[in-house]
Amino acid sequence: VIAARAPIALLTDFGLSDGYVAAMKGVLLARLPDAALVDVTHAIPPGDVARAAFVLEQTWPHFPAGTVCLTVIDPGVGTARRPLAVAAAERFFVGPDNGVLTPALAHPGAAARAIEPSRVGAGVLSRTFHGRDLFAPAAAFLAGGGAFERLGAPIADAVLLPAARARRDGETVRGEIVYVDRFGDCITNVHAEDLDSLSDGAARGELVIRAGRGVVVGLVDAYGEVASGEPCAILGSGGRLEIAVRDGHAALTLGVHEGDAVTIEKGRARKR
Amino acid sequence: VIAARAPIALLTDFGLSDGYVAAMKGVLLARLPDAALVDVTHAIPPGDVARAAFVLEQTWPHFPAGTVCLTVIDPGVGTARRPLAVAAAERFFVGPDNGVLTPALAHPGAAARAIEPSRVGAGVLSRTFHGRDLFAPAAAFLAGGGAFERLGAPIADAVLLPAARARRDGETVRGEIVYVDRFGDCITNVHAEDLDSLSDGAARGELVIRAGRGVVVGLVDAYGEVASGEPCAILGSGGRLEIAVRDGHAALTLGVHEGDAVTIEKGRARKR
Amino acid sequence: VIAARAPIALLTDFGLSDGYVAAMKGVLLARLPDAALVDVTHAIPPGDVARAAFVLEQTWPHFPAGTVCLTVIDPGVGTARRPLAVAAAERFFVGPDNGVLTPALAHPGAAARAIEPSRVGAGVLSRTFHGRDLFAPAAAFLAGGGAFERLGAPIADAVLLPAARARRDGETVRGEIVYVDRFGDCITNVHAEDLDSLSDGAARGELVIRAGRGVVVGLVDAYGEVASGEPCAILGSGGRLEIAVRDGHAALTLGVHEGDAVTIEKGRARKR
Repeated sequence: VIAARAPIALLTDFGLSDGYVAAMKGVLLARLPDAALVDVTHAIPPGDVARAAFVLEQTWPHFPAGTVCLTVIDPGVGTARRPLAVAAAERFFVGPDNGVLTPALAHPGAAARAIEPSRVGAGVLSRTFHGRDLFAPAAAFLAGGGAFERLGAPIADAVLLPAARARRDGETVRGEIVYVDRFGDCITNVHAEDLDSLSDGAARGELVIRAGRGVVVGLVDAYGEVASGEPCAILGSGGRLEIAVRDGHAALTLGVHEGDAVTIEKGRARKR
Repeated sequence: VIAARAPIALLTDFGLSDGYVAAMKGVLLARLPDAALVDVTHAIPPGDVARAAFVLEQTWPHFPAGTVCLTVIDPGVGTARRPLAVAAAERFFVGPDNGVLTPALAHPGAAARAIEPSRVGAGVLSRTFHGRDLFAPAAAFLAGGGAFERLGAPIADAVLLPAARARRDGETVRGEIVYVDRFGDCITNVHAEDLDSLSDGAARGELVIRAGRGVVVGLVDAYGEVASGEPCAILGSGGRLEIAVRDGHAALTLGVHEGDAVTIEKGRARKR
Repeated sequence: VIAARAPIALLTDFGLSDGYVAAMKGVLLARLPDAALVDVTHAIPPGDVARAAFVLEQTWPHFPAGTVCLTVIDPGVGTARRPLAVAAAERFFVGPDNGVLTPALAHPGAAARAIEPSRVGAGVLSRTFHGRDLFAPAAAFLAGGGAFERLGAPIADAVLLPAARARRDGETVRGEIVYVDRFGDCITNVHAEDLDSLSDGAARGELVIRAGRGVVVGLVDAYGEVASGEPCAILGSGGRLEIAVRDGHAALTLGVHEGDAVTIEKGRARKR
């Protein structure tokens, strides 16, 4: 089922201080006056394709069928990197072929095509801003009901970021912190099923989680189960193990950064 | 009168760097494709319920009847704190029962109800993100015309933040700085009627306002009445006494912070 | 041709932390429930009229005919500065008469009028927030189809910012850096035609561009033509010469700021 007015969800590294996002929105509205434009974020650090892919993965499933995710982190603008569109899970994804669309490409049944500028009514492309000159027209084309198959030739070898799943090492799950959010919560690549390989749900209170200078015993069901300023581990809203500090900033408190290791073992200690 | 397309006004402490606000918007659009989504702010410092309540108070009266204010500052997510909806002044307010909805609850005739997840079509709730899983569905329910009374049981003891009005102390009005805005303007809890208890309008030029290392004599009608870099006192757009520095940052110039005292007395000095 | 639902594009120095932008949007939606509100930026440094004018110039041409650009950088609020509306190039522009609307006023055929508060249904004006109390009602009036001529008296002497075009000095083009964006790219006031006065397109590889401690030979067609960390010169998306550093921050690398000089000469060195 496609929504009557399919949203266009914008995700870029353009920031909100300059006029770049607005120029894209102007192009979208000029082509599709009824477009429902939604900002995912524009605060991706310049060129950080992996971070953008993570935010895309965390958000796209919540948007309705028909949504066009316009994802422009494009340090290679103007080079031979291909402009890419992906159809997956009843949504569309538009962006450069540099790995940023990995969450869409990894979806079962995903189809990818190159975007031919002439097919989406793009004019002369500037050297530095294909978000405005090419990707926005492509997003408007799709949100307006244009056929995905008309965009350009199929692509079978789109760039994929390496999967970074946690792994089992004897009686230890070894993962890493993949994302620190604005609260300082440390989101890991450890999923519920990784924990279940060590433990059943009833025994989650016995898990010992280590990251940086922090050791946490057991998972909680709410930040409020620990005292203010104390660390805790919790299954977060994206289904991943997260380490947080109640009323505090876990990454600063534990001295950890994105990329740092997390280990989980079954311990003898009981949940507090 | 209810607007044809009632806006949903979002106010959170989620920031704009992560995907949390976008996930909420995706949920809203999936349920209400024509929703008019407006950001109030997402830059509330994490967990700062009082600051969020202040911004809510300053903004909600400007939105049309029917607007749903979706206000999620929720450090107690997952604990026993109740999910709350308030109907007041022809608007609706949705958020946790931790005081953040005080500006709505304090309105004459306000009605409060708990939100039963099943009544708003919420699915399984995550442990950490009821903004997405419960409050957004409740906001979509109300913005889509769902009956307030169907949300859940009435609540008579919703949490209220303490009122912090200025007080008269002999011939002095004693208040405090309750909010410093991005311009550095210091907004106080002193209202026009507090000043009138000392002075009629014609005599406002005689008031002596003290805050930090600043002494200002008289109120101005525009920042431009004082020289660049000079402090002034003015009745601000929310009806409160504000201390500003023309072309500058009053809080830095005067060395004051939120919570610091402000006093106002009738002085002998004449307005400059 | 006027779009069915003309967008209102907001550009202010209000930031996104306080409720000021939201109050304006509430006023707009209360008057025009179907308004399509788009943020250009709200991160203009307080009172920086020139920067706001630059962002306005870079963005307005991308919005569709009928768009109302609501541009409020208003340090003189409450003084005798006039409230201004401009009709140019099938768009409308609303803001204070302090130069911020220069990009509209400079357009051939632009017409300017004062805004009479009573003509746009404004109520009592606060002393500090005409964005909310006057300019938003004026924008809603125009976006809703109100006649430009009914706003108020024509203005023939609206404030214009000085033009700051690069100039030819013998065999040298002398310009300056007018804007550093979030990527650190240094946008200049040197346009393609300024370069062509020294060189034809084929010879752009011979140009020597100097700014701060940087010397760049030749223009590239994509950032990716130079090595990571290296500076390059490129014709940017607004038609201006820009100096960038691939995967880096040109302003920091070259030690330059807005207002610093840029020179371009024909050199003997060949493009790398």
